[in-house]
Amino acid sequence: MPQVRVDEVKRFMEESLQAAGAPPSEAKAHAELLLHADVTGHYSHGLNRLELYINDIKSGATDPNGKPVVLKESAATAWVDGRDALGATVGNFCMDLAVKKAKESGVGWVSAKGCNHFGMAGFWALKAEQEGLIGMAFTNSSPVMVPTRSKQRACGTNPVAMFAPAANGDSLGVDMASTTAAMGKIEIQIHKGEPIPHGWALGPDGKTTTDAQLAFNTGHLLPLGGFEQTSGYKGFCLSAMIEVFCSGLSGANASHQVRSWSLDSNEGSPNLGQCFAAINPDCFAPGFAERVAHCLKAYRNLEPVDPSLPVLAPGDKERANAQMTKDRGTIMYAQRQIDVCNALAATVGVKPLKVV
Amino acid sequence: MPQVRVDEVKRFMEESLQAAGAPPSEAKAHAELLLHADVTGHYSHGLNRLELYINDIKSGATDPNGKPVVLKESAATAWVDGRDALGATVGNFCMDLAVKKAKESGVGWVSAKGCNHFGMAGFWALKAEQEGLIGMAFTNSSPVMVPTRSKQRACGTNPVAMFAPAANGDSLGVDMASTTAAMGKIEIQIHKGEPIPHGWALGPDGKTTTDAQLAFNTGHLLPLGGFEQTSGYKGFCLSAMIEVFCSGLSGANASHQVRSWSLDSNEGSPNLGQCFAAINPDCFAPGFAERVAHCLKAYRNLEPVDPSLPVLAPGDKERANAQMTKDRGTIMYAQRQIDVCNALAATVGVKPLKVV
Repeated sequence: MPQVRVDEVKRFMEESLQAAGAPPSEAKAHAELLLHADVTGHYSHGLNRLELYINDIKSGATDPNGKPVVLKESAATAWVDGRDALGATVGNFCMDLAVKKAKESGVGWVSAKGCNHFGMAGFWALKAEQEGLIGMAFTNSSPVMVPTRSKQRACGTNPVAMFAPAANGDSLGVDMASTTAAMGKIEIQIHKGEPIPHGWALGPDGKTTTDAQLAFNTGHLLPLGGFEQTSGYKGFCLSAMIEVFCSGLSGANASHQVRSWSLDSNEGSPNLGQCFAAINPDCFAPGFAERVAHCLKAYRNLEPVDPSLPVLAPGDKERANAQMTKDRGTIMYAQRQIDVCNALAATVGVKPLKVV
Repeated sequence: MPQVRVDEVKRFMEESLQAAGAPPSEAKAHAELLLHADVTGHYSHGLNRLELYINDIKSGATDPNGKPVVLKESAATAWVDGRDALGATVGNFCMDLAVKKAKESGVGWVSAKGCNHFGMAGFWALKAEQEGLIGMAFTNSSPVMVPTRSKQRACGTNPVAMFAPAANGDSLGVDMASTTAAMGKIEIQIHKGEPIPHGWALGPDGKTTTDAQLAFNTGHLLPLGGFEQTSGYKGFCLSAMIEVFCSGLSGANASHQVRSWSLDSNEGSPNLGQCFAAINPDCFAPGFAERVAHCLKAYRNLEPVDPSLPVLAPGDKERANAQMTKDRGTIMYAQRQIDVCNALAATVGVKPLKVV
């Protein structure tokens, strides 16, 4: 598999975004967001999406010079218009505000309309965690989830992310879509020529399918929990709750009103809704970070069913991936990904990715 | 099935709690909490548990005269010691505080230690919703969930509840444990003599089981999502996130430290952690209730796979059950439940339940 040095990936992302019209500061911020996904092993949300973000700038869906504004605020809240700026621009603006309010009032709860895709939700929750706070981030998205009993899609993958600081630099990190599986996982099964498990997706008849290609073409993902008898309605409820925080509070499009995100998108702003929250543990019982560390230890020390598969605490997988990337100094991409980037380099006029 | 008038159920609950030592105001509040569960069709959390609550008072785990106190507060937060008071006493104290702070500062986020069981989480979220706010409630519990890959239990059923007001008196309500199924659902399968689906519970060997009795005896519930390949780690993550809000912030026992809840419990206070939050939609974009109503309508109008099973929006099932109870004026209980209550009536010295 081709390998690219981490700083070279960042250089390529930044230059490509700048070439497309983003100011240096915002290109850098957005590159950091995408790089974080690749570094932690969530390749679907990293370099893989650079072309989509650049296409959004070209099509006018994203205004790379857009500046978010506060429309209304109180001690612990803010309503923001993201003004169709880049995901990282809105994310930094809103989470900085939530952190500031949490430090002053105990909680900061910020909901924004006029948003574009903001990458991994966990990146934003982590930003507050690094300030010693509990961070949370939510976003809605185009409708790919089929609510329980429904033949039609209506909800987004609507992720929830939460990071909490733990003693000794540790953290407990959650970052999960409210669907059982992401579309990217179905693509991986197609590439491997393997079926998908029951409970991931429906076929066009509204019935379960294990045919990865059919599931991909149909694009009807089941909520976390799968079918009704295994409580799939709970994943649907989770998605609806996140919808309330994102579009409900901000006045953005609800997921069922959001256009799909593709290289052909030319319908202007998706007007996504996003929500950023921070809570200051100092306002509660002393010893928060020690208690979180205690839970992490308890989870990690559980006896595994299969001794070769240790129990992972929330966030451990991403931490291990980040360490591996750091040790290696490079990120590994499929050749197809490199080819796409080289074509992109030619289009926007930047130096192609240098493979090690 | 025996039927009991709603006001007679309430009379019986109140008198029994008073006979056990609860002051009239708190007995009334706790009866309202339990009654709500039966009225909305969640029988596991209603009259079914009265004996457990009374046993907690008798054993000294619950102090029916306990008065919660604020230990620390800021504009948007409060840290509370529930002082082992009745669940409804702590719930009312904390949610009233969260509502007050949300009206003043936009958000109220209250975390309490020293708690007993507070019944249905949704009851508390609904309390804020009735004030025109988004309400949220979380609790930890004794460990019954087996984290992904683990052979041992470590997490509680840790529910999340969220209610949001919608236009025309409607609401979007979420109230879900972070396990796939509740223990009560496994009991129902035992009574029916039917197996449980894969993905609900593990046997003592850490492998999946469909044997309801074995699952019940083992008491190892899988997180929402089931096994690793269907993203069971997301349910585990959800439970861990709720743990942070409940015991992390408050300093209560973490779920893995909480003793089990049974009629034999005599180990004193469970010292549960609970978290109550309220968010004021008026601090965000105008038209919140209309947008929530719009989503509810979109969900309800989805084409169902099976025309006889319409798509339900979050909270619709409970609303329909409540309407049915209201129309009928009575609640239906299993004869076994009536027998248990009659025995309880004799023990505490109150008039037995009058069956219609």
